[in-house]
Amino acid sequence: MKRVSFSVIGIVMWTCLIAPVAVTAGRTADNASPIYGVTIPPGYRQWAMVAPSHELGLHELRVILGNPQAMDAYEKGALPYPDGTILAKLAWKQVPLVEGHEIVPDAFVPGPTTTVQFMVKNSKRYAVTGGWGFGRFIDGKPVDKAQHETCFSCHAAHAKGHDYVFTRYAP
Amino acid sequence: MKRVSFSVIGIVMWTCLIAPVAVTAGRTADNASPIYGVTIPPGYRQWAMVAPSHELGLHELRVILGNPQAMDAYEKGALPYPDGTILAKLAWKQVPLVEGHEIVPDAFVPGPTTTVQFMVKNSKRYAVTGGWGFGRFIDGKPVDKAQHETCFSCHAAHAKGHDYVFTRYAP
Repeated sequence: MKRVSFSVIGIVMWTCLIAPVAVTAGRTADNASPIYGVTIPPGYRQWAMVAPSHELGLHELRVILGNPQAMDAYEKGALPYPDGTILAKLAWKQVPLVEGHEIVPDAFVPGPTTTVQFMVKNSKRYAVTGGWGFGRFIDGKPVDKAQHETCFSCHAAHAKGHDYVFTRYAP
Repeated sequence: MKRVSFSVIGIVMWTCLIAPVAVTAGRTADNASPIYGVTIPPGYRQWAMVAPSHELGLHELRVILGNPQAMDAYEKGALPYPDGTILAKLAWKQVPLVEGHEIVPDAFVPGPTTTVQFMVKNSKRYAVTGGWGFGRFIDGKPVDKAQHETCFSCHAAHAKGHDYVFTRYAP
């Protein structure tokens, strides 16, 4: 039993020691998010749709897309999400729909892109953040470390019971 | 020249004569929309995402999905959309995001499904409505003829300049 405990402690220590290395590695690439080293996955814009949302305070429309592993997990309804799952959150400023020179009443559509964000499941690499790595990008470039420090704490505070994922599948 | 004109008139007359037959055929199937005979295309929920929208008056979140022909046409940016294009509009009542027993401030997500709607491009079959057939469904069943009579007039009034399609691709 002591040997098992030692091994567990060893793994945790190993993770803590390795994590800063991964961080450093992630930060060396201009296109990778700080802390997590997440990059924009190719072809994500063609992924299937999980659900839209509306962020009132930010006046944003958002859509979550999922890679095939994510959609398979949603279909099965089983938690936690498997390693390899990636969720993409696309966000745009909400603007009125204009056709010709007329505003179509009460209809709002995507305006300028604000952020594109990703959650990548890798239970070993991201063991200290619930198995998830995060990446937030503006115009293809990752935002700073301070912004990335807010990702996990918010997901942990509100969505821990769903493996840290806010978004449910919209039928 | 007279012969050409006669041919054109002939085609128009033929279309007008054939159209009611198609209508009758469409109405005989319980799962097909009145007027147009549009049915729910298999697998549409896995199609790629064109754009979300927010209908303020109806408190609805909506997402347009497109079949491969639709996405190809969006990518090329060429109008009109080719025959075979299908666009799907999924709509849900917008509800606050609740995690545990807490409302997450300012975040709204899909609640109950309201309608699922389709635009099907077939320039011959639907020649009198800009080449588009329409289908509006609630719980898998098409709504009545009166509701379907409103589809084309609204698209024609507001979106004729974009081949009767409101929704632009959201990058």
